[in-house]
Amino acid sequence: MTEVEEQSKKPHEIKADGSFNRQKNRFTTPFGNLPGQLPVESGRYRLLWSAACPWEHRSVIVRKILGLENVISLGTASPMRPRIDRVDWEFSLDKDGVDPLLGIRYVSEVYKNADSDYEGRPTVPVLVDIKKKHAVQNDYFKLTNYLEVDWAPFHKKNAPDLYPIHLREQIDALNDVIFHDVNNGVYKCGFAQSQEAYEKAYDTLFARLDELEERLSNQRFLFGDYITDSDVRLYTTLVRFDAAYYNAFNTNRNLIREFPNLWGYVRDLYQTPGFGDTTDFAAIKRHYHLSITISPDKPEIKILPKGPDISVWNLPHNRETLSKSQEKFLIQP
Amino acid sequence: MTEVEEQSKKPHEIKADGSFNRQKNRFTTPFGNLPGQLPVESGRYRLLWSAACPWEHRSVIVRKILGLENVISLGTASPMRPRIDRVDWEFSLDKDGVDPLLGIRYVSEVYKNADSDYEGRPTVPVLVDIKKKHAVQNDYFKLTNYLEVDWAPFHKKNAPDLYPIHLREQIDALNDVIFHDVNNGVYKCGFAQSQEAYEKAYDTLFARLDELEERLSNQRFLFGDYITDSDVRLYTTLVRFDAAYYNAFNTNRNLIREFPNLWGYVRDLYQTPGFGDTTDFAAIKRHYHLSITISPDKPEIKILPKGPDISVWNLPHNRETLSKSQEKFLIQP
Repeated sequence: MTEVEEQSKKPHEIKADGSFNRQKNRFTTPFGNLPGQLPVESGRYRLLWSAACPWEHRSVIVRKILGLENVISLGTASPMRPRIDRVDWEFSLDKDGVDPLLGIRYVSEVYKNADSDYEGRPTVPVLVDIKKKHAVQNDYFKLTNYLEVDWAPFHKKNAPDLYPIHLREQIDALNDVIFHDVNNGVYKCGFAQSQEAYEKAYDTLFARLDELEERLSNQRFLFGDYITDSDVRLYTTLVRFDAAYYNAFNTNRNLIREFPNLWGYVRDLYQTPGFGDTTDFAAIKRHYHLSITISPDKPEIKILPKGPDISVWNLPHNRETLSKSQEKFLIQP
Repeated sequence: MTEVEEQSKKPHEIKADGSFNRQKNRFTTPFGNLPGQLPVESGRYRLLWSAACPWEHRSVIVRKILGLENVISLGTASPMRPRIDRVDWEFSLDKDGVDPLLGIRYVSEVYKNADSDYEGRPTVPVLVDIKKKHAVQNDYFKLTNYLEVDWAPFHKKNAPDLYPIHLREQIDALNDVIFHDVNNGVYKCGFAQSQEAYEKAYDTLFARLDELEERLSNQRFLFGDYITDSDVRLYTTLVRFDAAYYNAFNTNRNLIREFPNLWGYVRDLYQTPGFGDTTDFAAIKRHYHLSITISPDKPEIKILPKGPDISVWNLPHNRETLSKSQEKFLIQP
């Protein structure tokens, strides 16, 4: 492993067998009204994200679907890493290169503000206490569930129920599988440092995609007629697959557009408000193909692949015939 | 351009606008019985190739179809470049790492034997005068035509006519197009050193593939019912496309298996003796994804993409319904 790669994937994130072992989150305090919990307050937090990665995209989708846009504000970092020797997220898309509300240049600043000894990768999504400019929550795994449950008092009228009580156990179980084999599965392929670790991750990924393809053959979404939290999580990886992972992470058994059910399913979601309108293919491509911490070995020549054609995302999918309802969302009573 | 890339693509092969400009061939003497021409003699020459690239594969296909295997012998170099700083072809697949007939370790040796001042890349295919161990012909563009015409006295009985006199003008014209836009077109994409040069090559490549897709919608092969020299040339790029160029050369608008006619057509050829049996997907993948002069920037980590699935190459193609004849070859009278 070169010095540059050590910077992009912290050394402790590569195991002895060459497999990628994602770092644990540092800021995991739950929301609630008990002492030591994070208060649920409109206007108190800012969500920092980049349109590049699936981890933050899931929270941005849920925030939009639930109508939390005026409750939790959004700061958008560039999909491009700032420098070859700096694993960080930069607000270079904003005027003067600083987030207009927090006045910071890099995401790492809110991590250091909260913990001057912080040594991990500064990751997005991260919720920031706006007044203190402290990172307070970067638990990407649980963040959508917090928005769905703890932030219910601020949901818009007739907001959908993405995490219905009677399904939570099943959703949690499926989310776990989707995380290990699909969401993080593509990273295990792309960041593997041994052929064996790569092939193991590849086999697991495609076995799981085959299973999901079958599951979606006779139901519109993962839990039937309505979109749930699990669909959000699966979407964020599927929508990046053909444009990024297939090439950049060597996940090249099949494109998603070659799976008939997954392809109709992901376009069905894409064409739903909250999904396609938060999906930035240009940012995704720039991040995975050009950003220097993904390709630290290509600092000189930067060619952005022109394909694939993204106009096909708006083609009819005919998935509504699988559903008893024409509505995609279960509306809370 | 880094020093390593200067080694893999000679500096004079990159133009000021970043586009790739393939070097001219050095040994282009034609075959014939006139003074200064190369004599057509069984057992006199050895053809050196690697299973990796399209340029030599075309000659190996034609040699096999025409039954020249006992007339011109074959030496097979490894698909892997020997070293990061050495653009050469190595006989590391052979016992003791030397070609058993010529006793050479590197293809460059026959170039230096023939011309001690030779400064170009040592390329395959090259025909070698076995006694002198001299490179005598490396004109990959014309080599199949020499085998088809000048070597006719040594063709097997009932050898097909791949270059019929009444079609030669049209075949030559199409070969020229296929060379610039497709065979070399994928290299222009992969070796471009500017985004503009890459996108121009990409657009030209896919416009041409769209045109060929249309051409093959109502005829089995490029010139109708029978395989010609043009089909051999198109095949060698198409067969490498999904396994190599789509990822390694950023030719990612579509996979060949997504073009219905091209996909049936290339499998029809693959399933024809001389084509599939000279196609080595493992060598192709190793060359384009791992060989250090294609990816000089990844000397440390070598992950060989596991996909795509190659079992599909033997699936039925149903292209015979487009043909008046069940035979794929026009047999010489």
